[in-house]
Amino acid sequence: MVVAKSTPNKATMKKVQPGSNAKAKAEGAADERGTQGRLMLGTLEKSLRVLSAFDKHQPNLGLLKIAAAANIDVSSAQRIVHTLTQLGYLDKNKDTKQYSVTVKCLSIGLHFLSTNSLIDKANPYLVHLSQETDETINLTMLDDVDVVIVARVLSRHILNTSAVIGTRMPAFCTAPGIAILSKLPEADAAKILDRSDLRAYTKRTVTDRRQIMAKIRKAARDGYATAFEEFMQNDASIAAAIVDAEGMPQGAVNIAAPYATLKDADTVRFSALVTRAAAAMSG
Amino acid sequence: MVVAKSTPNKATMKKVQPGSNAKAKAEGAADERGTQGRLMLGTLEKSLRVLSAFDKHQPNLGLLKIAAAANIDVSSAQRIVHTLTQLGYLDKNKDTKQYSVTVKCLSIGLHFLSTNSLIDKANPYLVHLSQETDETINLTMLDDVDVVIVARVLSRHILNTSAVIGTRMPAFCTAPGIAILSKLPEADAAKILDRSDLRAYTKRTVTDRRQIMAKIRKAARDGYATAFEEFMQNDASIAAAIVDAEGMPQGAVNIAAPYATLKDADTVRFSALVTRAAAAMSG
Repeated sequence: MVVAKSTPNKATMKKVQPGSNAKAKAEGAADERGTQGRLMLGTLEKSLRVLSAFDKHQPNLGLLKIAAAANIDVSSAQRIVHTLTQLGYLDKNKDTKQYSVTVKCLSIGLHFLSTNSLIDKANPYLVHLSQETDETINLTMLDDVDVVIVARVLSRHILNTSAVIGTRMPAFCTAPGIAILSKLPEADAAKILDRSDLRAYTKRTVTDRRQIMAKIRKAARDGYATAFEEFMQNDASIAAAIVDAEGMPQGAVNIAAPYATLKDADTVRFSALVTRAAAAMSG
Repeated sequence: MVVAKSTPNKATMKKVQPGSNAKAKAEGAADERGTQGRLMLGTLEKSLRVLSAFDKHQPNLGLLKIAAAANIDVSSAQRIVHTLTQLGYLDKNKDTKQYSVTVKCLSIGLHFLSTNSLIDKANPYLVHLSQETDETINLTMLDDVDVVIVARVLSRHILNTSAVIGTRMPAFCTAPGIAILSKLPEADAAKILDRSDLRAYTKRTVTDRRQIMAKIRKAARDGYATAFEEFMQNDASIAAAIVDAEGMPQGAVNIAAPYATLKDADTVRFSALVTRAAAAMSG
């Protein structure tokens, strides 16, 4: 798998009126109604939006802010937050009355890291690639419109201790993103661009849809993709997609190097190395 | 925060009879009934058990196995799995009809890593401690009866690329666990031992409740805890707890070294270094 289903647009979600007296009924109805058919559980959908409301910019949230961020009514938010707190996934600060996510949430992510067979398979190749290039090597996977770093071997000459596993970057302007999209049927890649926010992160970000499609086609021909300072200053990245037995993308491996010191010869050598590594991890 | 609420014991959870015709009603009733009062959402509780059913030993699960592992009826499991799949948290293998967790689950964990202020604060101290000792340094937090690694700086002479962030270890037989427990009111530490499975992981694991309580009291007096090969062969660990302004434990920092080559003088030096580092991160 690689293409996660798109989550329903928040703006189109039905909203139960706040202050409803028949909370239980409303919850039950929401469960039944869902947004994508009879089997969808509204409570679960809302709860996952609550957990996703917390991020670097909003690490501590009060009940009203949680309801607003998840686009649900306050009474639903209250029950969801109460349940998550009781189960140990949220923690309430007694003084500020604000909530934050707990270390228990980390377990949910770990299930992915510890159960994914590609990560296990890839690790020795990533280490080898790091030794060959002396640069930082990432394994990424596509999640909707983003690529997510799922494994990383840092360059020996960079001391970076930040927790980068789980870091998300937009697919449309990153080398692993373009490499992965290039292995999808073109209509599927186009749909991902349709859902993407094609905005400029740097002066060099390619935001023109046609130019991005051209980059995807070029990557399909070349077998690798490059992105130079499109998402971050001084970041050069060269990536190749890892595919399954049917040729569908499972992820990408990329070499990340400082753009300032990258020579054309490096680009040539790195693209050959990354393509070979991705081929070895494929199938 | 540090002590997560204990999750309800699976064996005591009420189980809706499989094959119930009134699925929606049962869901609604479960929502209302809950297990811990009126506000608990049964659907959410079950759903989190479904996500937790996947682990290293069971990365791929069919519907019946999911229902069994989460201790819920098959019709509930079906709706939860359907919803999680639609939202991109689970993926179904077309050939085997089995499910696995997706990279999207990683995001839930990342919310914790990217929002936790202690991790940010600790990182420079962890790096410094690694340079002073040339050993692996961990930052851990308590989650119910386990300690979980939330940040790690690897020793320069060990090449270990496995994804260890999120790794859980029992608190009762690890140095960070004992260090954290030693900063709790003794009754709270005792309750955690009550809930713990005090089994032997190695020949040297201390499993006697009284001896463990004695270790906790010693750690409270000394300001640090040690564990030598209690959880893993050749693993020596020296830890000190990080406390908040009220003296409550927020986590622990530990130095992990190979036991075979550890000298008594190292233990003395490491305990002083780790205690100083923990004090600097506290308050």
